[in-house]
Amino acid sequence: MLIHRLAIIGVGLIGGSLARALKRASACGRVIGCARSVGGLEKAVNLGVIDEFHTEVAVAAAGADMIVIAVPLGATAAVFEQMRDHLNDKAVITDVGSVKGTVVQAARRILGPHMFRFVPGHPVAGTEKSGVEASFAELFDGHRVILTPVADTEARAVQQVTKMWEQAGALVEVMEVAQHDKVLAATSHLPHVLAYSLVQTLARVEESEGVFRFAAGGFADFTRIASSSPEMWHDIVFANQKAILTMVERFNQELAILVQAIDANDSHKVMEVFNQAKAVRDEFSANRLKHIPVANELISH
Amino acid sequence: MLIHRLAIIGVGLIGGSLARALKRASACGRVIGCARSVGGLEKAVNLGVIDEFHTEVAVAAAGADMIVIAVPLGATAAVFEQMRDHLNDKAVITDVGSVKGTVVQAARRILGPHMFRFVPGHPVAGTEKSGVEASFAELFDGHRVILTPVADTEARAVQQVTKMWEQAGALVEVMEVAQHDKVLAATSHLPHVLAYSLVQTLARVEESEGVFRFAAGGFADFTRIASSSPEMWHDIVFANQKAILTMVERFNQELAILVQAIDANDSHKVMEVFNQAKAVRDEFSANRLKHIPVANELISH
Repeated sequence: MLIHRLAIIGVGLIGGSLARALKRASACGRVIGCARSVGGLEKAVNLGVIDEFHTEVAVAAAGADMIVIAVPLGATAAVFEQMRDHLNDKAVITDVGSVKGTVVQAARRILGPHMFRFVPGHPVAGTEKSGVEASFAELFDGHRVILTPVADTEARAVQQVTKMWEQAGALVEVMEVAQHDKVLAATSHLPHVLAYSLVQTLARVEESEGVFRFAAGGFADFTRIASSSPEMWHDIVFANQKAILTMVERFNQELAILVQAIDANDSHKVMEVFNQAKAVRDEFSANRLKHIPVANELISH
Repeated sequence: MLIHRLAIIGVGLIGGSLARALKRASACGRVIGCARSVGGLEKAVNLGVIDEFHTEVAVAAAGADMIVIAVPLGATAAVFEQMRDHLNDKAVITDVGSVKGTVVQAARRILGPHMFRFVPGHPVAGTEKSGVEASFAELFDGHRVILTPVADTEARAVQQVTKMWEQAGALVEVMEVAQHDKVLAATSHLPHVLAYSLVQTLARVEESEGVFRFAAGGFADFTRIASSSPEMWHDIVFANQKAILTMVERFNQELAILVQAIDANDSHKVMEVFNQAKAVRDEFSANRLKHIPVANELISH
């Protein structure tokens, strides 16, 4: 058995899906859920996602050999504080936050001497749904999980978290903290900011024109991610503020190039941009299909 | 039988799917395909999409009681020219172009006295694929088709085109030309321009950072439309230049509001934007599911 007592702090889509995936692989013994509201925890027990629950982080963490923090980014520091003085000697801690810089900062400040056993992590998978009722064992299959250990992270802890995610079906990759935050700003946070702004734009046109009933799949695909949890995205944009603002600036430059070409009737330039984008996107699709099941169209955070 | 001889000028995704849908409904007799390349036409015959073909528009149109022009926008005027002097008395003409202003202008100029029998149309459906091999009978099921008849369009012609699209499974709606182009600029053309610019942005980051392998479904959904035909989108952005540039401006305003709120640590404003966008998007989904099968996730042009 890889993990004897697994504590999941925050039993939502990600925490619930991880518990399901590890149970599917018979990779963990008892799963202890922890959250502030008893309602969700009772649902999680009924769904067979967790075996028992506690509402106190300290109690849930006490006997665990693996603690996974799967709360919204903004709540992570508080969880560190609640567990700090109640950790046993063998516990490895990891998290699932979409931004790693702020989490590592908080961990260093709060966990102090326990820092060596904390492995910052980010499963690049999700859907626009949230809550334990949306969780499913296949969520991580073929998806990347990025770990961003720092200089003082123990190698043994990294190995254990790596094994856990591999048992859950994921492909684990190790990266620098800053690199992670930059990459995710480009591939996930920027698209979300654009999707929110697009929906806002159309909402204003809608007021006067009633456009939504003519929006078909293109708009639907494009803005599905705007249905994601506002709280979660609030935390993400502030945690990764600088990298996101840099990426928005780069996007604005590209948009300006295209808009200027359209405005100037520059047929050649427009074709060049569209052809380049199509080639890049087609290559992305081809590579992606190599390792991700087609039906498993998910959203990264 | 609704249509005895149906001429489809341009047997690609849209033209091919219309032929299939009408055959499914036993709503048309013989289907005559027309295109410049014989290869695609032979494929269309083998697939059972069309019954015969000609490479000359004049010949294909000659005996038809319904002529559907399903060529790229930029080729529409040339098709009008090629058929003008070869139309029989009963022929009704319609098109499927994603922009209506330029098509109506060209029709008025070229068709002249035949203008009364031309019904400008736009099926708001499609996929990012192209070619007759991508066509399927269900493409229009539950989707809108917008007709934009002008003052001199004959009511009888509008009725016949309406019936044709209803037989093909679509919901027909009539709209002013300018209104159509504005609505589509918002719901379809703007998202495409953003998707192309987003892919360009990431392509440049990719060169230095290798980000694509960390892009999951959110990015994939968002940019799938950038795989659409560059030629088609080239024609669309120039045909609807002004409306698109106006919509990009409105989008830039919304993006600036959100970016400024992120930059200024305005937590309240960011939550407001995200909550509004989620509410709007959720309402859109709920309404959409009322009349479009869930599995039928398509792209509009």
